[in-house]
Amino acid sequence: MPGNAPAIDLNSDVGESFGNWTMGDDPAMFRSVSSANVACGFHAGDPSIIAQTCRDAVDAGVTIGAHVAYRDLAGFGRRFLDCSPQELADDVLYQIGALDALARSVGGAVRYVKPHGALYNTIVHHEAHAKAVVDAVKAFSRSLPLLLLPGSVALAEAERAGLRGVPEAFADRGYNPDGTLVSRREPNAVLHDENRVAANMVRLATEGTITAIDGTDLQSPAESICMHGDTSGAVQISTAVRRELEKAGVTIRSFTA
Amino acid sequence: MPGNAPAIDLNSDVGESFGNWTMGDDPAMFRSVSSANVACGFHAGDPSIIAQTCRDAVDAGVTIGAHVAYRDLAGFGRRFLDCSPQELADDVLYQIGALDALARSVGGAVRYVKPHGALYNTIVHHEAHAKAVVDAVKAFSRSLPLLLLPGSVALAEAERAGLRGVPEAFADRGYNPDGTLVSRREPNAVLHDENRVAANMVRLATEGTITAIDGTDLQSPAESICMHGDTSGAVQISTAVRRELEKAGVTIRSFTA
Amino acid sequence: MPGNAPAIDLNSDVGESFGNWTMGDDPAMFRSVSSANVACGFHAGDPSIIAQTCRDAVDAGVTIGAHVAYRDLAGFGRRFLDCSPQELADDVLYQIGALDALARSVGGAVRYVKPHGALYNTIVHHEAHAKAVVDAVKAFSRSLPLLLLPGSVALAEAERAGLRGVPEAFADRGYNPDGTLVSRREPNAVLHDENRVAANMVRLATEGTITAIDGTDLQSPAESICMHGDTSGAVQISTAVRRELEKAGVTIRSFTA
Amino acid sequence: MPGNAPAIDLNSDVGESFGNWTMGDDPAMFRSVSSANVACGFHAGDPSIIAQTCRDAVDAGVTIGAHVAYRDLAGFGRRFLDCSPQELADDVLYQIGALDALARSVGGAVRYVKPHGALYNTIVHHEAHAKAVVDAVKAFSRSLPLLLLPGSVALAEAERAGLRGVPEAFADRGYNPDGTLVSRREPNAVLHDENRVAANMVRLATEGTITAIDGTDLQSPAESICMHGDTSGAVQISTAVRRELEKAGVTIRSFTA
Repeated sequence: MPGNAPAIDLNSDVGESFGNWTMGDDPAMFRSVSSANVACGFHAGDPSIIAQTCRDAVDAGVTIGAHVAYRDLAGFGRRFLDCSPQELADDVLYQIGALDALARSVGGAVRYVKPHGALYNTIVHHEAHAKAVVDAVKAFSRSLPLLLLPGSVALAEAERAGLRGVPEAFADRGYNPDGTLVSRREPNAVLHDENRVAANMVRLATEGTITAIDGTDLQSPAESICMHGDTSGAVQISTAVRRELEKAGVTIRSFTA
Repeated sequence: MPGNAPAIDLNSDVGESFGNWTMGDDPAMFRSVSSANVACGFHAGDPSIIAQTCRDAVDAGVTIGAHVAYRDLAGFGRRFLDCSPQELADDVLYQIGALDALARSVGGAVRYVKPHGALYNTIVHHEAHAKAVVDAVKAFSRSLPLLLLPGSVALAEAERAGLRGVPEAFADRGYNPDGTLVSRREPNAVLHDENRVAANMVRLATEGTITAIDGTDLQSPAESICMHGDTSGAVQISTAVRRELEKAGVTIRSFTA
Repeated sequence: MPGNAPAIDLNSDVGESFGNWTMGDDPAMFRSVSSANVACGFHAGDPSIIAQTCRDAVDAGVTIGAHVAYRDLAGFGRRFLDCSPQELADDVLYQIGALDALARSVGGAVRYVKPHGALYNTIVHHEAHAKAVVDAVKAFSRSLPLLLLPGSVALAEAERAGLRGVPEAFADRGYNPDGTLVSRREPNAVLHDENRVAANMVRLATEGTITAIDGTDLQSPAESICMHGDTSGAVQISTAVRRELEKAGVTIRSFTA
Repeated sequence: MPGNAPAIDLNSDVGESFGNWTMGDDPAMFRSVSSANVACGFHAGDPSIIAQTCRDAVDAGVTIGAHVAYRDLAGFGRRFLDCSPQELADDVLYQIGALDALARSVGGAVRYVKPHGALYNTIVHHEAHAKAVVDAVKAFSRSLPLLLLPGSVALAEAERAGLRGVPEAFADRGYNPDGTLVSRREPNAVLHDENRVAANMVRLATEGTITAIDGTDLQSPAESICMHGDTSGAVQISTAVRRELEKAGVTIRSFTA
């Protein structure tokens, strides 16, 4: 993906407030990212939060994606739910449609789909759930890309179904020398040094490589960088990543552009 | 509306099961009606129920409408909820979009909107909620009609907003001489005699009049007849109404046709 | 348990309606069983359903148990939810307390706990979830028994914690020669012949044996028989079981008696 | 209530987080108040939040009350819901029982009930809902007091039913000369000057009077002072109130003591 004029997408989770509860600093993230993973009401985001988030995304020129999840408000979509593939496909399609209607009412539209939390992690390996998500996206639109983990079963299913799978990298996560993410149970799972994170992401955007925690250079197919918005220091890190990418001549733009 | 070739729409609530719970005899109603008010998940109808209901509607050649409701699963949308107009508008738009995505995936689409239960009754008189519903429908599509009670504030708001308001009559409800429905607290509120109901509806479709409980003839603007599917005898009544209408040369077709 | 005067408990799931949706024939089951597994609101049963169910149980002289479940109304508690043990323990304790308050208001009380659906099946083998359920029950009362599958991890955990674990048999399920239940994917999983089921249960109550599908006699520690109320013919089967047990001189009474 | 040794209760809403969302600074409030209105899951507070909140209350020596609400998570219980009195009574009893079980598991118990948000405001005037709440509390325990607005219909209903109604004052709300609260739509509805608030509350505790916004002295029967925890400056105000009350020789203690 890096060519004559290197470009990359930055994505972040937004719209994760619910009712009277707020989460994240969406306005700050909208200043940094080019793609917004908008919660669809199943793990977070009620319709009014979604509408306001879409308004803000459109105002900021940020591309809207559907952050679809298992039906689990109490667990914020972070718990595996052993639903049937049909239930999952229907739940995902329901969420995309609901978000799209709200996005269109403010001049936007759903331009991609990213599974959230436990669903994202499950379809790295769970074939039936991966296929269900892909089926739902395809049922909504054959031209809607899915934002997924490189090497995941879901990415392979998307491509098999004729959909575009967009691989992403994680700005603030440590990588093992084999390209997998360092488990959150280990040290180095999460990187806190904004300079180091920014330098890594510049290399990714300009050279297509990520530096593993032992210094190994990994080839990465990532076309988007996931910026976390809910950890301490998240806004600073995303600001630094954007600033250093721009300094290095990298264009920040949606992978759908 | 009755002209050279009299025609009328028959509508019924469907898709009101949820998860493991079933309600109504949707397949039977699909044989009688031309319009299906499909629950959207806020008072009934989970995504898999919705998808299956849309499939059945498309197979039966029945037009799909969004049966939007207050967020109240425990109360089946039959309890007034004093939400803000903005919350209501966003909730309604969310529901329409969700249903539309599922309907489109099986070859259908949302062709009209009918508010459900307490929302239907509230916007007979509640201006702010009536306007919120109309705003939501308009935000989805300016060409989407709303199915409403004749004389309601919501019907006036729809027309003021440039939307089509479609007035409906109730097949199995008694009418007072002033054209209002007989309160459910009184005798004659619900009609159980299928022959009487069918005869009334034939007159409505051919002459544009409804017979009140005291025998008075009422002019009615109704372009659709609501058939209840959840009362005892509902299927028999709707079968009788359809049969007698057809015998009388009335075409049963969607008001969107 | 069968001694000079053989006795056994019959249990059934009740209170599984929700809001406007009904399920099962609770009044019929109350005429057959001695123990009622009352839904607590997480998979089924809203507070008004629960209150009415407890009233009916008290009137029928049936013992009330808490039918605790994963938080999954849309899936009727039949889907594994990968919650943390702490979340599960708190969810279970919340459910027991809620039911107990409603039961006490009508002259009853929670006298035992039976996990429902996916939770029941999960804690046959899932140690952390089994322990969480046991911890929750113990936190409510050290004298509350748990109704569980013989040989399950949960039963062992209950006993390790000093609680009484009550093993149950399934009236209408086929048993493999090794004592496990025939999988629902195979024929003979569910028995439909009320005479055969009743005869099996009489042997269980009087001799402590269950006949496997190949005719093998299995020793069974069951102190309670689970009667399904949601399958076709359930009421007839439970009526037959009760009648034949009484004919054989077996007393039907709660295992807490 | 102010006698030889003046004493008063300070109460605050706590446990209003839900799942991954946090709200309020409960640890800070626990240092100021003597009574904790703990959310019960219907407007806020999942079982794990509730359990932790009860643990913290017990550790801080703060009395636990059930902050019961309409079933409205999306609206945080701030929207009137037109449920039937029976539904409301059952919902309230369910909530009290659930909280009590979790409180007892950590050495506490529900010692009083305070309706939340729209329910609190509704039963100032709505007789059927007021009676339903009182019925539910009475069904749980005849010795459980209700914390309510002075002059409310609910307070009268509580006393008519033989329950103790405890009137409260609001530390940071302006009072009209007729003793009613200044509407939130007007200036002076909320007081932000911690010194003025604290001085007012010292007069309430020592003299039984509240100063209205025009300087009028109002007799007040309040036995408890509600401290808001969710407004900006809430912790500072509550700290100031406690400090000044103690300086004035007022004992801060639960009205159940």
